[in-house]
Amino acid sequence: MRLRNKPWALDYIQDYPQWASLDPSQWKGRWQERFDTPQPIHLEIGPGKGQFLIQMARRHPEINFIGLERQKNVLVSLLEKQVEDPVGNLQVVLADARLLNQYFQAGELAQIYLNFSDPWPKARHAKRRLTSPQFLEAYRAVLIPQGQIHLKTDNRQLFEYSLLSLNQAGLDFLDLSLDLHARQDPVNIMTEYEERFAGQGQVIYQLKAQFPKE
Amino acid sequence: MRLRNKPWALDYIQDYPQWASLDPSQWKGRWQERFDTPQPIHLEIGPGKGQFLIQMARRHPEINFIGLERQKNVLVSLLEKQVEDPVGNLQVVLADARLLNQYFQAGELAQIYLNFSDPWPKARHAKRRLTSPQFLEAYRAVLIPQGQIHLKTDNRQLFEYSLLSLNQAGLDFLDLSLDLHARQDPVNIMTEYEERFAGQGQVIYQLKAQFPKE
Repeated sequence: MRLRNKPWALDYIQDYPQWASLDPSQWKGRWQERFDTPQPIHLEIGPGKGQFLIQMARRHPEINFIGLERQKNVLVSLLEKQVEDPVGNLQVVLADARLLNQYFQAGELAQIYLNFSDPWPKARHAKRRLTSPQFLEAYRAVLIPQGQIHLKTDNRQLFEYSLLSLNQAGLDFLDLSLDLHARQDPVNIMTEYEERFAGQGQVIYQLKAQFPKE
Repeated sequence: MRLRNKPWALDYIQDYPQWASLDPSQWKGRWQERFDTPQPIHLEIGPGKGQFLIQMARRHPEINFIGLERQKNVLVSLLEKQVEDPVGNLQVVLADARLLNQYFQAGELAQIYLNFSDPWPKARHAKRRLTSPQFLEAYRAVLIPQGQIHLKTDNRQLFEYSLLSLNQAGLDFLDLSLDLHARQDPVNIMTEYEERFAGQGQVIYQLKAQFPKE
């Protein structure tokens, strides 16, 4: 995403500590304290401007949602929406997903969403893809047993890579679509990207998978 | 495939017992006897007119190939090519794949190809798909440990189903393409169908997977 720089972004995030965390390590093992009700926590990595995450939070009051975004200029767009019309079961975090294990303890998360993640097309950048073996190991460490990963992308190479990577890491595939919008799935909530790309006739891929029991 | 009836098909197949079997059960455990050289056996289920299988056999003299086809009117087209210009490492069989375990003993096959199989789109016909759990169990029983399945199709629903089914059966994905012809893979040998559909700009899907060591 090309970003407009917002020099006031960090100040803005700091102004809303009830919704936003700049130092997620201090909440490790205590995330439920940041919500009204202790209930399963779902994490979106890279929520962007938050259309998907906010709609999910509204539709699922029985779940606590966290959006982890590393770009402050993007996170403020999400936070502005939250400030304007707050959703109680939504928290946002400015942080780098590579340090996930410093932010969450084992079993603290029930589900992770990866929507239209950066494809990092060069082979030498494969480790940076959010479905690389390194990231999958980190997810396994913070998810409950049988915790789920829900993935959407319009990038064919990233989806091919992810199918191989998740299969090889031993995840069980629960559901899969090679053209999500051909399904007319009434449950699907679209991201900003998805609306734009699907409107251009671009195929959207989706995978829902879970880690095995043990 | 819509078929022209060929009343002479069975007679023709019986005329070439050196290349074709009508009673594969009698060769169970003894398939190597039908080839010049004992070497790994690869099976294609539904070879159609045989363009893929014949080219594979010519390109890989170090492998013995068997084509198992249930339509006599199709099998004769393949057999006619074999009669006209024989390939020593190619055998064809007129039989129903549902009885695979009656034709091959455990570990007798190294690899199975499924190219453009019938998608059987109705849910109540799912068992008939060549990647259903029932078929996968049959393949596991006749393949060597770590035996491979190579699958190509232009049918999105069949490929979605197959990815789920093979993953859930515990197969390890080795390679995967959601647009095979975008790759310009010089190793790919096309079937008759594939030439036609890819020429129309239809996406071709491919998966190579293997059973675990177990």
